[in-house]
Amino acid sequence: MSYASAPIPTAPDTRPLAAGVIGASGYAGAELVRLLSSHPTLRPAVLQARSEGFDEVDAAAISSCDVVFLALPHGESQAIGTELIERGTQVVDLGSDFRVDGWTYGLPELHRESIRVARAVANPGCYATAAILGLTPLAASGLIDGPAHFDGKSGVTGAGRSPSEKTHLPELYNGITPYSVMGHRHLAEIEQELSVLAGSPQLATFVPHLLPTSRGLLVTAHVRLLEPLDQADLDDLYRSRYDGETFVRLGGLPAPQRLAGTNVCWINAWADPRTGTVVIEAALDNLVKGAAGQALQNANIMLGIDESAGLTVQGLWP
Amino acid sequence: MSYASAPIPTAPDTRPLAAGVIGASGYAGAELVRLLSSHPTLRPAVLQARSEGFDEVDAAAISSCDVVFLALPHGESQAIGTELIERGTQVVDLGSDFRVDGWTYGLPELHRESIRVARAVANPGCYATAAILGLTPLAASGLIDGPAHFDGKSGVTGAGRSPSEKTHLPELYNGITPYSVMGHRHLAEIEQELSVLAGSPQLATFVPHLLPTSRGLLVTAHVRLLEPLDQADLDDLYRSRYDGETFVRLGGLPAPQRLAGTNVCWINAWADPRTGTVVIEAALDNLVKGAAGQALQNANIMLGIDESAGLTVQGLWP
Amino acid sequence: MSYASAPIPTAPDTRPLAAGVIGASGYAGAELVRLLSSHPTLRPAVLQARSEGFDEVDAAAISSCDVVFLALPHGESQAIGTELIERGTQVVDLGSDFRVDGWTYGLPELHRESIRVARAVANPGCYATAAILGLTPLAASGLIDGPAHFDGKSGVTGAGRSPSEKTHLPELYNGITPYSVMGHRHLAEIEQELSVLAGSPQLATFVPHLLPTSRGLLVTAHVRLLEPLDQADLDDLYRSRYDGETFVRLGGLPAPQRLAGTNVCWINAWADPRTGTVVIEAALDNLVKGAAGQALQNANIMLGIDESAGLTVQGLWP
Amino acid sequence: MSYASAPIPTAPDTRPLAAGVIGASGYAGAELVRLLSSHPTLRPAVLQARSEGFDEVDAAAISSCDVVFLALPHGESQAIGTELIERGTQVVDLGSDFRVDGWTYGLPELHRESIRVARAVANPGCYATAAILGLTPLAASGLIDGPAHFDGKSGVTGAGRSPSEKTHLPELYNGITPYSVMGHRHLAEIEQELSVLAGSPQLATFVPHLLPTSRGLLVTAHVRLLEPLDQADLDDLYRSRYDGETFVRLGGLPAPQRLAGTNVCWINAWADPRTGTVVIEAALDNLVKGAAGQALQNANIMLGIDESAGLTVQGLWP
Repeated sequence: MSYASAPIPTAPDTRPLAAGVIGASGYAGAELVRLLSSHPTLRPAVLQARSEGFDEVDAAAISSCDVVFLALPHGESQAIGTELIERGTQVVDLGSDFRVDGWTYGLPELHRESIRVARAVANPGCYATAAILGLTPLAASGLIDGPAHFDGKSGVTGAGRSPSEKTHLPELYNGITPYSVMGHRHLAEIEQELSVLAGSPQLATFVPHLLPTSRGLLVTAHVRLLEPLDQADLDDLYRSRYDGETFVRLGGLPAPQRLAGTNVCWINAWADPRTGTVVIEAALDNLVKGAAGQALQNANIMLGIDESAGLTVQGLWP
Repeated sequence: MSYASAPIPTAPDTRPLAAGVIGASGYAGAELVRLLSSHPTLRPAVLQARSEGFDEVDAAAISSCDVVFLALPHGESQAIGTELIERGTQVVDLGSDFRVDGWTYGLPELHRESIRVARAVANPGCYATAAILGLTPLAASGLIDGPAHFDGKSGVTGAGRSPSEKTHLPELYNGITPYSVMGHRHLAEIEQELSVLAGSPQLATFVPHLLPTSRGLLVTAHVRLLEPLDQADLDDLYRSRYDGETFVRLGGLPAPQRLAGTNVCWINAWADPRTGTVVIEAALDNLVKGAAGQALQNANIMLGIDESAGLTVQGLWP
Repeated sequence: MSYASAPIPTAPDTRPLAAGVIGASGYAGAELVRLLSSHPTLRPAVLQARSEGFDEVDAAAISSCDVVFLALPHGESQAIGTELIERGTQVVDLGSDFRVDGWTYGLPELHRESIRVARAVANPGCYATAAILGLTPLAASGLIDGPAHFDGKSGVTGAGRSPSEKTHLPELYNGITPYSVMGHRHLAEIEQELSVLAGSPQLATFVPHLLPTSRGLLVTAHVRLLEPLDQADLDDLYRSRYDGETFVRLGGLPAPQRLAGTNVCWINAWADPRTGTVVIEAALDNLVKGAAGQALQNANIMLGIDESAGLTVQGLWP
Repeated sequence: MSYASAPIPTAPDTRPLAAGVIGASGYAGAELVRLLSSHPTLRPAVLQARSEGFDEVDAAAISSCDVVFLALPHGESQAIGTELIERGTQVVDLGSDFRVDGWTYGLPELHRESIRVARAVANPGCYATAAILGLTPLAASGLIDGPAHFDGKSGVTGAGRSPSEKTHLPELYNGITPYSVMGHRHLAEIEQELSVLAGSPQLATFVPHLLPTSRGLLVTAHVRLLEPLDQADLDDLYRSRYDGETFVRLGGLPAPQRLAGTNVCWINAWADPRTGTVVIEAALDNLVKGAAGQALQNANIMLGIDESAGLTVQGLWP
């Protein structure tokens, strides 16, 4: 018997569930605390600011949690994540340490059933979430004539809470700044997932850019097709793939400022028969669907409760 | 005898040249007046705010000008532009009316000799300038496995001085907004010029985005190659093509905020042998190299004076 | 018997209450709909976009509402507001038409008991809310040596959803813009309320400024004192006045970006014995405590339900 | 005989003058280099990035300069400034070390004749420049019923090039942030100069705020009068005081975004007979008239050349 065949029913009235957040003072950690504050059944029971070693974390309190979120800088989740799993605690890691060839890849729209029975989930990168969800229907159709070409744009919160010369306001203001042109950390995740979807190795180019803004992320993709696809077919492909998905919105002109505070990934795809290309736009809030919200979505699934619990609050706009 | 074989020598001390600006109250027109204010030999002799018909413009004053700049909204240059040419006045049109299959295409780095003898020059679009200059060395090499894929990002001044719901600050703030995904006006110019360079029809996809900023523009291109090119070859290709060009800067991470007020197009290209792709970034100030500055560069060439006259002032940064 | 002596008890389980919003497509109206979407008992039953006359509004549907919010441009509430009151509907007007010498002034921290029994409440202006709450303890103490000097700064949403030349992004970007230096609409409200608090006529100067941002508002006040007050006395004055107030936060450095989406007014006061002056900072979200949130707070009081119902969601930051 | 009675004539054709800039990599230093690049006679001969001690600076090269600018962080000019003066080099210090009871206070519109014969000039603070110039006509008239009340707003470049948590983009975005409410460094300068103008001690309150922008500064003042002044008298007072001043603009709605790159201080004053108050707005570019531009203006005066040399370039707007 498994979670998948017999999910634990939600029981909000009988017992609140306890969440731990390690790294609660960073932007993603703080966002998680915000989301947990309106969650119907999961309580932020143990909050720890960033810590070098597990010794400084109250291990007993952590072990009493139903799920622990790691919201640590990249590279710092390895030791504590491994130890928590060994102790039998369910973990969602918001860092990049376990995303490639590691833990269950926590993109619910692709891996819901695996997440349901996983004890260790690696939350996808913010850019990767938009890039992969944006291409999933096409990749699964086997129609992509790779590589796929991605252009990412993100607000500064995506680079974390630590100030740096590169993210100093006057350096970014009134412009847009490319970085890591040939080697962003999220590229490996993107290629891994697109390859699984397509059933064959898929390559990609990915160029990220910093916007002089705070939160919000947009990924634009240009994808060539092996066979032509008209707009009606393309619309069908996307609608049927995402039918029933609470956190995917289709159509229109995706713009991240319309999603602030929400767990939605907003996607649209345009067929260009003239060039045999499809253009995709995928927008999200990098701190929610790109980090804390998706982590909570994963935890909800792991705990067998309503997947959208704590994630239904309306966004803030304008 | 032609201008090309016997250019008129610069004579700043003997006779100032007179410029007319029709549409001087728009952003591009005002920028032109700013640039003319520090030009050594060309004086802003006749300034006219936007006008519906040529009757309202002082035709005699205009006809005394050595060059007239049209900085009118798209579609409004046709009548007045044609009439000025018939009267024998040299004209640079900053609008899109004459760019495709019309007047001499005013991209000096490509068409300097044609511009030198032209009486009617169509100034390129802001996105088109960055896109074409960014791909010129590759296109001319015949190595592009088209279509080329362009992603454009621009500040709001690129959309002009008239306020609209789509450009209202709260609608754009803290985000980035795609528009005209499948049919931006500049796409035809881009394909026209790349085709001429390659000697065969070249297609492209182009997706523009509005930044919540004022001026500055960045175009990112992903281009597949027919044959592999390593980084050293790519660097050579770009360096040799742009050797001696005053207004092209190569290398680094092009960012438009570093170019505010300058006539520079800042380009870099990265080879990605893994995917057989080249990524190009091309940044510029949309009101200068993307509009008024390039118009002045064209006028300088048409008048036989120093191409960089009035365009050497250092940019404003940060 | 009155509401004040016998408030109607909250009964969320038995009957949801119905709210009407006239002007639901403006920024304040849309914010009200957002807040109502998470209100435990009040439902957004009738939503009407801006309408010239009451004829176009479904009068029957409106009359079935327990409370109607008017979120119309300034000057357009007069007719419909008066008619609704005559029909016996409870109304909260977010415009300025009834604020001075008109309906009950809906600043709950000052007029809670009057609002409780009122059928017609005029919601204060955004600047006025910050200015009045910021000075209330001092004004009530009778210590102000007037006039009080106010400096206001607001994001562009405070100027509404209609684009204009003055609020066009490039005109505001990278700066701050004063307007209505000698005659802002909110000055009369401010003086009216400070005079009531002091028990004698109080004058003020008020200079508003537009920030190149979307939402958020800060008012800075410089107030001279008739008698010296040290910091400890000042702190006591503010703490005792606002003890128990859910939506007033004291201390620290008030900054509106920390309050986005919340109904909080964040206030601090500094004594400067050297100059006999007190400096006050008061920050709020102009669309929430400065508009829709305060309107909902007023409606909650009028309906006899929990004053903070629908207003407890955590803000979005950063 | 003095400089004042027999100024050294400008001789641009015969000998270029040499400028040294110590601290050329900070924002103010880089701005100085930008301005020097278009100066007709003064050349940026020696540029030194920030240095802890004078040993690391090429003392011989520095001593060959006609004027040396110190653009160092606050508190680091003392040693090197004193040593340069002892060596007989003319110095303009952009820091705050010598402003109060120290070197000649380099506000040309107030102290032009003293600057002309000074060897050591302390360049005013950015806020102080706007505050003092904004109140000079009133202070000199003896009509101020003090203290004067100042509200300052500045872009982040005013806080320098070093990133910090307080100036990290996400912390400032979509808001405005007060700081140093009761003790900003510039207050002493302001009171010193207003007292000299009035002939008696003048006190002030000054509250600075950080805007989420790059450059530009606005100071708003509320000043009570000992005797009433109508608008016509006030206008006369300002016009007559600033008649002939190249870098003071009067009237309209001062907005710093209209002054980017210029050395102009834009001032307007409004009389409010109802409250016996005058409101003043004073805007400038904090890196030009608030730092590098004013430093160059001072150097021009010290060197006996045209006061506006290198400072006439038109600003960049929008």
